[in-house]
Amino acid sequence: MKFEIMRDRLLDGLTDVMKAISQKVAVPILTGIKIEIDEKGLRMTGSDSDITICTFIPVEENGEQLIRVIEPGSIVLQAKFFSEIVRKLPTNDVTIEVSNGTQTHIHSGKSEFHLIGSNADDYPILPNVKDDHRFSLPADLMKSIIRETVFAVSQQETRPILTGVHWDATEDSLTCVATDSHRLARRTVQPEQMPESPFSVVIPGKSLQELNKILPDHSDPVEIVIADQQVLFKTKNVLFYSRLLEGNYPDTSRLIPSEYKTSVTVNGKMLLQAIDRASLLAREERNNIVRFSADEGKVLEISSNSPEVGKVEETVEAVDVKGEDLKISFSAKYMMDALKAIDGQDIAIHFTGAMRPFILKSADNDAILQLILPVRTF
Amino acid sequence: MKFEIMRDRLLDGLTDVMKAISQKVAVPILTGIKIEIDEKGLRMTGSDSDITICTFIPVEENGEQLIRVIEPGSIVLQAKFFSEIVRKLPTNDVTIEVSNGTQTHIHSGKSEFHLIGSNADDYPILPNVKDDHRFSLPADLMKSIIRETVFAVSQQETRPILTGVHWDATEDSLTCVATDSHRLARRTVQPEQMPESPFSVVIPGKSLQELNKILPDHSDPVEIVIADQQVLFKTKNVLFYSRLLEGNYPDTSRLIPSEYKTSVTVNGKMLLQAIDRASLLAREERNNIVRFSADEGKVLEISSNSPEVGKVEETVEAVDVKGEDLKISFSAKYMMDALKAIDGQDIAIHFTGAMRPFILKSADNDAILQLILPVRTF
Repeated sequence: MKFEIMRDRLLDGLTDVMKAISQKVAVPILTGIKIEIDEKGLRMTGSDSDITICTFIPVEENGEQLIRVIEPGSIVLQAKFFSEIVRKLPTNDVTIEVSNGTQTHIHSGKSEFHLIGSNADDYPILPNVKDDHRFSLPADLMKSIIRETVFAVSQQETRPILTGVHWDATEDSLTCVATDSHRLARRTVQPEQMPESPFSVVIPGKSLQELNKILPDHSDPVEIVIADQQVLFKTKNVLFYSRLLEGNYPDTSRLIPSEYKTSVTVNGKMLLQAIDRASLLAREERNNIVRFSADEGKVLEISSNSPEVGKVEETVEAVDVKGEDLKISFSAKYMMDALKAIDGQDIAIHFTGAMRPFILKSADNDAILQLILPVRTF
Repeated sequence: MKFEIMRDRLLDGLTDVMKAISQKVAVPILTGIKIEIDEKGLRMTGSDSDITICTFIPVEENGEQLIRVIEPGSIVLQAKFFSEIVRKLPTNDVTIEVSNGTQTHIHSGKSEFHLIGSNADDYPILPNVKDDHRFSLPADLMKSIIRETVFAVSQQETRPILTGVHWDATEDSLTCVATDSHRLARRTVQPEQMPESPFSVVIPGKSLQELNKILPDHSDPVEIVIADQQVLFKTKNVLFYSRLLEGNYPDTSRLIPSEYKTSVTVNGKMLLQAIDRASLLAREERNNIVRFSADEGKVLEISSNSPEVGKVEETVEAVDVKGEDLKISFSAKYMMDALKAIDGQDIAIHFTGAMRPFILKSADNDAILQLILPVRTF
């Protein structure tokens, strides 16, 4: 195996693949990156067995030669060392050569690295994803969906299914739901192109977080292929595989109230900042709880009290308050997470009494719904 | 106590004082900041008992009113909460008021914080620094001196005196030395204004690192007052006190070789990058050793070998090599630290054989000297 490549492009591809690399893997070869070069280009693969990322760098792109292939071949190199080396190479021209089986030489300028590689035949084979369900979403929409839901997955392994986000596709819409049983985040989209048949899968939250880091910020399509135990996200040069969580996701639709007793419309950013301040003194305590009250006067009062430290009182003018007067307490963190996820200017909050879950939406549309369970303090 | 102040100025002062605050202090009141307001301005004090920082904000500066004093007084507030609150206040106008002894109210816009303070009389009194030795240095020169020496202090408490930097002033020069017994950094300066009589003190490395963060990047003078057990650094609005280390600093002058067998002149940045790369594969191993060879050909060879991972070979063209051929091994980290401290374009390295300490200087002047002990591998 021998090829020359531009360092910057090699580094871009490596940075993506490194997202799948973990030092805590059961299979030692997975601390390495598989490198395969043929007349079409360079393919690099990294995996922690839950997530597998595969990037491709073509020999030529837009008339510019990125790679000169001298001898096709493959090798597995220690990910940590290989990426550190590439990052620090002295020039933009790199030659990578394998001799005597696994002796790998990386040459650039006056630097010469000799790494002991592993045989690429020992590297696990990529999951074979049958394209049972195939559709696509723009990359930036996908990033929004992830950002608006993934923070609400459970961080505890007591109910593993809740560590994932439930993607449920019917004929005309895709609903993505995450809940840790104290709060819930739901995003509904009507993609232009839907899969041919409905599906229901649970994608690990961690996979979606890593995917989010790799996806570009533009609207190029991401192709999504869903099979029995795997989901594959395809962009132009990256394949991102994730295992799916097994088990039935709970039916969350019955949690969401449909009748409201108090409805508040308020500027989301002002409310977020007021809650941030109101919770400053309560952060260290177990629950980080703030009190919230709304009445006809349209002035929302937010307060917290930490007996040993002090207390905070904030007021925010609401755009509108409808229905019964309300006093309620909730986790400041959950409320701030929910407000950050709804990026709109004005927010509608619908309450059904002090001890019932309440929901947040953008004042303009129903695409995002956030639900929070209150805490009993009043 | 009651006053109004501009949030931004309050935050600037707080940021400096917070550098002295540690949550791990034996005296509980030191987790707080002492706040004193009188007709001249606001004084804030923070301390971890080793370092004490005191900042002053005048009532008026350059014709602009920064503070309106309504009632003079003093209080101690929990540093962590007070600084978080100030950072997040909604407007630039803040009112701070103490009522009923220690009940403190912080008001800004529609936010109202109530903190439980402590009595300022319980706060330790500032060290009384008799001005035995007083001189001054430009702030930016002081930052350079710190940067060029402090990295070489010992990180181990086995010989506490080595955790400090030795400042030794004679009639016409100040010499600052740090060593951890494996390497040594020395900076000599001839200040325009010297203290009236010689002195020799050891300043804790940690104090100098914190001082470096507070000092401005311009050439305004820093006044330095040295007493028996304390040193005080004074800038326009900040007083920085540090305790001194007790004990005798070892005589390091005899360590520095005066005769050389091999002298190398080389571009410092190129050498730094080559050593950085050469040590990439050796970082995890105990010593992080690179090999270095120089001969008449003026091509320096730097290499390292990690049996399980691989090896690296680098070459750097020297400007000049004089004297005997040389093969030597040393810690890549020590060499990189020393090269970073000498910021000059070209560096002179003087060797006295493979097993003797060697020194680095700027090719232009002797103000900075770095000494490194080699490691036996050849």
